Amino acid sequence: MAQQIRGYTGYDHFLVTSAGAFVAHVEINRPAKLNAFFEAMWLELRAVFRQLSVDPDVRAIILSGAGERAFTAGLDVQAASQGPPLVTDESLDGARTAALLRRHIAEFQECITAVEKCEKPVICVLHGVSLGLAIDISCCADVRICSKDTKFAVKEVDIGLAADIGTLARLPKVVSSFSWVKDVCLSARFFGAAEALAVGFVSQVHESKAAALDAALNMAKLIAAKSPVAVQGTKELLNHSRDHSVEENLSYTGIWNSAALQSNDVKVALLSGIQKMKPRFEKL
Amino acid sequence: MAQQIRGYTGYDHFLVTSAGAFVAHVEINRPAKLNAFFEAMWLELRAVFRQLSVDPDVRAIILSGAGERAFTAGLDVQAASQGPPLVTDESLDGARTAALLRRHIAEFQECITAVEKCEKPVICVLHGVSLGLAIDISCCADVRICSKDTKFAVKEVDIGLAADIGTLARLPKVVSSFSWVKDVCLSARFFGAAEALAVGFVSQVHESKAAALDAALNMAKLIAAKSPVAVQGTKELLNHSRDHSVEENLSYTGIWNSAALQSNDVKVALLSGIQKMKPRFEKL
Amino acid sequence: MAQQIRGYTGYDHFLVTSAGAFVAHVEINRPAKLNAFFEAMWLELRAVFRQLSVDPDVRAIILSGAGERAFTAGLDVQAASQGPPLVTDESLDGARTAALLRRHIAEFQECITAVEKCEKPVICVLHGVSLGLAIDISCCADVRICSKDTKFAVKEVDIGLAADIGTLARLPKVVSSFSWVKDVCLSARFFGAAEALAVGFVSQVHESKAAALDAALNMAKLIAAKSPVAVQGTKELLNHSRDHSVEENLSYTGIWNSAALQSNDVKVALLSGIQKMKPRFEKL
Amino acid sequence: MAQQIRGYTGYDHFLVTSAGAFVAHVEINRPAKLNAFFEAMWLELRAVFRQLSVDPDVRAIILSGAGERAFTAGLDVQAASQGPPLVTDESLDGARTAALLRRHIAEFQECITAVEKCEKPVICVLHGVSLGLAIDISCCADVRICSKDTKFAVKEVDIGLAADIGTLARLPKVVSSFSWVKDVCLSARFFGAAEALAVGFVSQVHESKAAALDAALNMAKLIAAKSPVAVQGTKELLNHSRDHSVEENLSYTGIWNSAALQSNDVKVALLSGIQKMKPRFEKL
Amino acid sequence: MAQQIRGYTGYDHFLVTSAGAFVAHVEINRPAKLNAFFEAMWLELRAVFRQLSVDPDVRAIILSGAGERAFTAGLDVQAASQGPPLVTDESLDGARTAALLRRHIAEFQECITAVEKCEKPVICVLHGVSLGLAIDISCCADVRICSKDTKFAVKEVDIGLAADIGTLARLPKVVSSFSWVKDVCLSARFFGAAEALAVGFVSQVHESKAAALDAALNMAKLIAAKSPVAVQGTKELLNHSRDHSVEENLSYTGIWNSAALQSNDVKVALLSGIQKMKPRFEKL
Amino acid sequence: MAQQIRGYTGYDHFLVTSAGAFVAHVEINRPAKLNAFFEAMWLELRAVFRQLSVDPDVRAIILSGAGERAFTAGLDVQAASQGPPLVTDESLDGARTAALLRRHIAEFQECITAVEKCEKPVICVLHGVSLGLAIDISCCADVRICSKDTKFAVKEVDIGLAADIGTLARLPKVVSSFSWVKDVCLSARFFGAAEALAVGFVSQVHESKAAALDAALNMAKLIAAKSPVAVQGTKELLNHSRDHSVEENLSYTGIWNSAALQSNDVKVALLSGIQKMKPRFEKL
Repeated sequence: MAQQIRGYTGYDHFLVTSAGAFVAHVEINRPAKLNAFFEAMWLELRAVFRQLSVDPDVRAIILSGAGERAFTAGLDVQAASQGPPLVTDESLDGARTAALLRRHIAEFQECITAVEKCEKPVICVLHGVSLGLAIDISCCADVRICSKDTKFAVKEVDIGLAADIGTLARLPKVVSSFSWVKDVCLSARFFGAAEALAVGFVSQVHESKAAALDAALNMAKLIAAKSPVAVQGTKELLNHSRDHSVEENLSYTGIWNSAALQSNDVKVALLSGIQKMKPRFEKL
Repeated sequence: MAQQIRGYTGYDHFLVTSAGAFVAHVEINRPAKLNAFFEAMWLELRAVFRQLSVDPDVRAIILSGAGERAFTAGLDVQAASQGPPLVTDESLDGARTAALLRRHIAEFQECITAVEKCEKPVICVLHGVSLGLAIDISCCADVRICSKDTKFAVKEVDIGLAADIGTLARLPKVVSSFSWVKDVCLSARFFGAAEALAVGFVSQVHESKAAALDAALNMAKLIAAKSPVAVQGTKELLNHSRDHSVEENLSYTGIWNSAALQSNDVKVALLSGIQKMKPRFEKL
Repeated sequence: MAQQIRGYTGYDHFLVTSAGAFVAHVEINRPAKLNAFFEAMWLELRAVFRQLSVDPDVRAIILSGAGERAFTAGLDVQAASQGPPLVTDESLDGARTAALLRRHIAEFQECITAVEKCEKPVICVLHGVSLGLAIDISCCADVRICSKDTKFAVKEVDIGLAADIGTLARLPKVVSSFSWVKDVCLSARFFGAAEALAVGFVSQVHESKAAALDAALNMAKLIAAKSPVAVQGTKELLNHSRDHSVEENLSYTGIWNSAALQSNDVKVALLSGIQKMKPRFEKL
Repeated sequence: MAQQIRGYTGYDHFLVTSAGAFVAHVEINRPAKLNAFFEAMWLELRAVFRQLSVDPDVRAIILSGAGERAFTAGLDVQAASQGPPLVTDESLDGARTAALLRRHIAEFQECITAVEKCEKPVICVLHGVSLGLAIDISCCADVRICSKDTKFAVKEVDIGLAADIGTLARLPKVVSSFSWVKDVCLSARFFGAAEALAVGFVSQVHESKAAALDAALNMAKLIAAKSPVAVQGTKELLNHSRDHSVEENLSYTGIWNSAALQSNDVKVALLSGIQKMKPRFEKL
Repeated sequence: MAQQIRGYTGYDHFLVTSAGAFVAHVEINRPAKLNAFFEAMWLELRAVFRQLSVDPDVRAIILSGAGERAFTAGLDVQAASQGPPLVTDESLDGARTAALLRRHIAEFQECITAVEKCEKPVICVLHGVSLGLAIDISCCADVRICSKDTKFAVKEVDIGLAADIGTLARLPKVVSSFSWVKDVCLSARFFGAAEALAVGFVSQVHESKAAALDAALNMAKLIAAKSPVAVQGTKELLNHSRDHSVEENLSYTGIWNSAALQSNDVKVALLSGIQKMKPRFEKL
Repeated sequence: MAQQIRGYTGYDHFLVTSAGAFVAHVEINRPAKLNAFFEAMWLELRAVFRQLSVDPDVRAIILSGAGERAFTAGLDVQAASQGPPLVTDESLDGARTAALLRRHIAEFQECITAVEKCEKPVICVLHGVSLGLAIDISCCADVRICSKDTKFAVKEVDIGLAADIGTLARLPKVVSSFSWVKDVCLSARFFGAAEALAVGFVSQVHESKAAALDAALNMAKLIAAKSPVAVQGTKELLNHSRDHSVEENLSYTGIWNSAALQSNDVKVALLSGIQKMKPRFEKL
């Protein structure tokens, strides 16, 4: 069994192990409950990814769900039924209730967004039950791959609410068909791995969770062997590109690379190319 | 034959019938002329969809073209040849002509956009001849499905103009390949159902118009049975997402749901889930 | 062999020939070096496309690479190793080096962007080795088609840098899957024609370079036979659409067409449609 | 007494008179109630300004309040206490109430915005009591001037709500000090003409309402004597400028003027300048 | 002497006292060093304002500097000379140093921005030496008032850097003259209270620090006596307005008020107006 | 008389002299014609400012008009009457004429914008006749000061057109009162130095042109003696701030300073502060 990375052993709901040089593997670790989330878990998710973001020993991250049955079943409905919005202070009027809900949603969003803001690339491996929050979280990852048996759904409409933790913000920007996005978000219907691949939600489908993890591991190792200056800049600039015009992005990119090109990595990369040797890059 | 919905019988060019509980079916109703549009028709299109938008008895809408031959052949060229831009007041200089054209285009755009601004989801069923305005209008719908025999074209270039009623604004945002968008918009060539599916313009293709309508009906019924607060919020937030950054959308979503979560629908939905009963939601 | 167009014979690294009425064919012409780029070449690329942009005898452009082996292998690494960022004035501090790099990147970007800003549609035909700059440049073209043997890669990460000349700004906006974009940009791995087609990067794949060029030629002739007012407006409005909200684009389009509709092309196009004759449009 | 303009006599709450060649004078006409607004009035305000916007006999508009005591005291509190948000259907949950309020606010905003969207310049003359809606409406005008006795306040906070009809959207963009904007909007305190002038809210202060109207009339006549193509373009481009970057505005301006410069007005203006004669421009 | 508010006594560098019902007074409390800032202080500033933001017993905040000599002299240069950017790890290349600086600046910015993000209005009282960070911080406050003796300067250029903690982002948006902004930011020259008032940087000038504090206190009490739903909504909507177009802001405002109008405060405010009694609003 | 700077002697219409260490003085040099502009002049203006932008011997620039009578009278009407839009090819239809006008305006705009894009601060000294282009050009400068006798007007409306070279894009963003901007832009009336100062268009007024030049020189010398990394960064970040939200600007600023802080200037500035010596900065 993979070894937990020192400094990450204090988390209760996530297992963080080393999966090779500079590669961390984060597992949502509540398999008995299909990795369903309650508040303490998303607060911890934020903490894990903030730590990984600035950890110089990590250059690529795999995110998956522990156990054979689920990446995550989404919100733990039982736990959710104890808190807002289901339980609110009845003595408050509509405006005051709204203020509390706003703060609650904002913090929940921030926790999930921590996966996107993590400076290192995140490869998300989905399998089995992958509902609700599974879509919110995986949309924050950089690359999504899955096993053949994955059952996806944007489930929120079925519990009477519009998804507000990120799916509606990001899904239209990561796949190919707005008609399909509307279809699955309005109907909350299930869709499988083949459909996810066809619309570009995932970029690879594998026979099993194990095979998907293997593929993710290979990709992570490949990326982790490259210049971290180049890799982390590429992640940042692509995320910026999604939300800005071409012109804004070109300008931002020029500023970014005016510092990034002052690394030794370009020389190291070129030299190792000529010498047919594996380059060795300084930490970042 | 389906029954016209009371309150919608006064329209000359559109037939609005009930297609099940909370489901309205709007048909472009000029089959003898391949449902080609003239000015009175797009003004009426706006009126129909503004009425549906706030009708509490409607939760999902199907939009199709009457008759077997066409969703719509687009602009009625004969009618168009009587008005601007073909007929303009020759005594006006270029700036004054431009002012009139600007107002004309702005109103035409607003009529088509009424389909997008309608608060209820719109499922567009395309078949047969589906040219020019067919693309402008269907891009405003939430979900597009079609029959195998559909012949699409972004036809405007062939009559000497750049499409200005919405296709160029929306098509790049609903499909998967900008190369393909440029191809069909610059060449005005025909494309079929398979190609439309491959690029994600439609999300389903069916054997016949009848089969496509059936599929639309099932989807509409499915959506109409869900919380209207959740469904209408999802439509609004996805449309907002298309035009804003992830960060802007998350913030807007938080504000939106601070009121939307104060519905009874969450409780109703959860309870009916536990009780395995069909939920019943208040009107909206 | 095709004939060079008068007025374009002074270019050293690009061959500009006539490929039919109103159709220009631009070839990157350094086949012995796999059409690899050095600074003088991108400066010349800008000049070529600025000239074509306002040449009334040109209505559609094909861009390809000379020779059988490559569209372009990207940056000429040997040439690059003589200039910034590899060679910089060591006496300068980090801020001053950054200022020089910023100006260098800005000019390089502007040269590549000239392909996008060219007012006439550009059909890019890729074949063989198509690395690095091949992606930057082709993303600026309107339509991308390729031969079966094309080997693509977003190669920049492998030389220690985040691509800064346009790929990261434009690739997410021309294809269907953000997961796939991240995959190829972070890993720098090769991908082939079939994969490029599946994600919508190219819209056609052909058996050979010759067949791809034939297809491009047919498309270019088709476009060149249409109203240049309509075609050039369509290009401009689609590029604007990519970078603006639907609402902004509709407003811009209304202004644009308030002048564009004052062409004779609408009448010419409609009349030739009725008369089943080939329309003849004035120059633009 | 000034004569009502034919075609504008059907309005109940607004008096529209001619104040010179091409100059219309709109008066809020409920002086007995300090020109306080109820719903029918803002619906009519929209109608008046939409009609003026496309009336070729109008080139400049003065907007003032009838009577000596008030431009407007704002919302008619008594009337307001009969409708939303004070009276809402108690059987509705928070989400459904919010949907109704959203539609109500959106229509109210649209009515006030009609003053801004009017294609002709609007000079607003404020005097006496000028509270709440007085700020919302006058922020939509192009030029604001007032009499010495004007008593202004952004009054909304005092009735328990954040102003939602336009003051908060526009006031920060028309005056000079964000600190002052926050001060008057958060405290709802009164401010006078001198303070309004100091921060640039008004650009002129006069001894009396009559003097202010005289000044407005002179300005309106001056503007109405100029090229309507130039004047209306200037209004549109300045409003666009307020809400866009310099770069976006320059591009939009280029498109706009590519049609607007095709007027005869440039020649007429230059010629009349040389001949020292008053130019005569065609209608618009 | 004013009493510290329970729950705020643990801060080392800020004194938080009660200044009346629902009014908190925050003092930068390092008078012996002219309230100059080092890292622990800006981290604490963030903590103080995050706590105040959600404290239902606080509705208005006064921010000032302890002692007679200074609001703040800005960065503590001696402390700054121990950390980045002056001391950086020399073994790191330019790209890696940039990554550390980026993270450092981002956190510093976030600490200062906490004043702006605080949901309650902040009135900043400046006096004496008010350099560098004094401008960054006060630009985040809602209202700025000062004593006659205040000596302001945007000092950063004089220590070899462009201000990066907020002055350049916000100053152009809070005052009246871009020419003046450029003047003081490029020259780092001193300016006094009169000049600050003339350009709208402050909205009031008083004879002494004590008088300015008195005025702030009156304003704070006035604001704290009003509906907190109205006041906090007004702050949020004005800040949104600064950074968005009128159209975006109107739409956001409609959504916001669809919940905010569901408070009892409107009724309470109207009733107390009729009854000439002081309204009493629920906590928020 | 001041000495022309070597390398700038080839310009026909601009005199570029040295006005102290690192200070260049650019004079519009056609005093016999009130410095009125024709096409060759604005093309040259672009060339001058592009050269200054990257000239390491220049750190601050003064821009003024030669002679006692005028900064510039604006467009040379006689020259203008020979070109577009007054003279256009009559055989072209409205769309084709618009295409030519668009290109013409775009290039004209780019020439004026070169003053804004110049990396070094530009202090504009206005005097005497300062019409039309005088406003467009001075709005691109960083600081505007003028002599008491200056006569300003946004004159374009009087020649039948909306200003399209920059005044409408920039004026609302450099002054304090949108009401005043509309007033002077719609009426084309004259305004003097006192009014320009009151609204913040200029930040200083002096008795004479000579006195204004003196003041500009002192400011330029002051700026030129400071760190060019700090000064040029401040200019760039303030211009970015004008066109972006606070949040966007903070992020851009962090990236910018991650390189800029890697200069020696911070150490040099701090050390010279301690040693009470004049700092000496490397070129940029």
